Amino acid sequence: MKILLTNDDGIQAEGIQTLRRALSKIADVTVVAPSYERSATGHGITVHKPIRAEKVKLQGSDRDHWSVVGTPADCVKLALETLLKEPPDLVVSGINHGANLGTDVLYSGTVSAAIEGMINGLPSVAVSLYDDALVDFTFAAEFTAKLCTLLRLKGFPPATLLNVNIPGAEAHAIKGVRVTRLGSRHYINTVECRKDPRGREYFWLAGDVVNVEGDGDTDVDAVKNNYVSVSPIHFDLTNYQVIDTVKSWGFETLL
Amino acid sequence: MKILLTNDDGIQAEGIQTLRRALSKIADVTVVAPSYERSATGHGITVHKPIRAEKVKLQGSDRDHWSVVGTPADCVKLALETLLKEPPDLVVSGINHGANLGTDVLYSGTVSAAIEGMINGLPSVAVSLYDDALVDFTFAAEFTAKLCTLLRLKGFPPATLLNVNIPGAEAHAIKGVRVTRLGSRHYINTVECRKDPRGREYFWLAGDVVNVEGDGDTDVDAVKNNYVSVSPIHFDLTNYQVIDTVKSWGFETLL
Repeated sequence: MKILLTNDDGIQAEGIQTLRRALSKIADVTVVAPSYERSATGHGITVHKPIRAEKVKLQGSDRDHWSVVGTPADCVKLALETLLKEPPDLVVSGINHGANLGTDVLYSGTVSAAIEGMINGLPSVAVSLYDDALVDFTFAAEFTAKLCTLLRLKGFPPATLLNVNIPGAEAHAIKGVRVTRLGSRHYINTVECRKDPRGREYFWLAGDVVNVEGDGDTDVDAVKNNYVSVSPIHFDLTNYQVIDTVKSWGFETLL
Repeated sequence: MKILLTNDDGIQAEGIQTLRRALSKIADVTVVAPSYERSATGHGITVHKPIRAEKVKLQGSDRDHWSVVGTPADCVKLALETLLKEPPDLVVSGINHGANLGTDVLYSGTVSAAIEGMINGLPSVAVSLYDDALVDFTFAAEFTAKLCTLLRLKGFPPATLLNVNIPGAEAHAIKGVRVTRLGSRHYINTVECRKDPRGREYFWLAGDVVNVEGDGDTDVDAVKNNYVSVSPIHFDLTNYQVIDTVKSWGFETLL
């Protein structure tokens, strides 16, 4: 199995390196990842300036890997079209330092890399560790390697990626795996206003998660209760449920 | 009616300024938009550096508007939490120079601003002009103003935005309005490799649209046939159709 591995925390992050070592036991892994942290980039791509990609060696691996001055989505585009000699069987993004639950997926560079894999017709997985309690990627990396082996056996639904969130608990405390829908997370105090030494205002985006809850079947719920969450995601944002309502609004009268 | 207006082509772009003038006839319009072009930013937000927002005056308007060194999603966050004295009734993003059809919406800064409005519980509209043939925003701006008036009357489905694409045709050639689902656009040759004066490789993301087609009910189809396309979009990316399949894969055996 050939795996393209990327992330949004940067190529040197502990999450991706721990995952690389675990995946290397079951697959040929090539890392093509941002040279520095690019979290919260959403599905941004770099179109206004050129992108640099540098060949790098990583500890314990003889292969060429790539450090890219670009976003996670850039990395996947570049890897698939130019850097990799053969297309991978699987695109894996992570392990992200911090959960990507519910509406987080819209902002997540980690998920955007997997979306780019999916758009290109490849089975893709995004993996994040909910690390409030514990920043140890060992269990998450080993779980992901076993997951990739299973996915290879089971096949993969077309135009779907799996968004995996792993609780930040000791392995023995993980209760199981739940297949979930995306829930919702709410943030408050997302803007902090400060003054610079010259007295001019500037702003930081921040925000506290105040409401991490679902109705039992969401990713938010699963992780909160120490279950690994696996959500199948597609890229069709059409809200089919309201199409008939919107059709009834009489847009034709506007012309 | 109070409208928050933003875009991703920058506050001085012709699309947003033409739209501002048209919307000002029916609403109190405050512009909070990027200081320069931020297209293809996806739903990126700026979390690693501070954001500046500068009060600006715009031709023919007595109001304060804001030029923000940030992404479209930053602009909406900042406007709603800090810059606007009162919440708007409607968030409008556009008019984008170029269509945002099908999978384009994942990369689109224009759509991301409307998504941010929607996440914050506000009726939101993204408007783009398919300008291959004609770069004249007059019809698109007037249509959007009439659309906003209609939306105010009809109400708005919760957690939904409208993604509007307007053909680049003369007004008399526009055949009507279609409520559509998102279609698909395919790009080829997305990476171009060059060498710098020192002989080192660098890359440009580019890409040609080669396949703009649907099966009759998509946004791609509508615009190609000179219809205005209106697609209702939500932010739940869960692929419900495959949840049972994925559940059958036996993830529990991985622990």
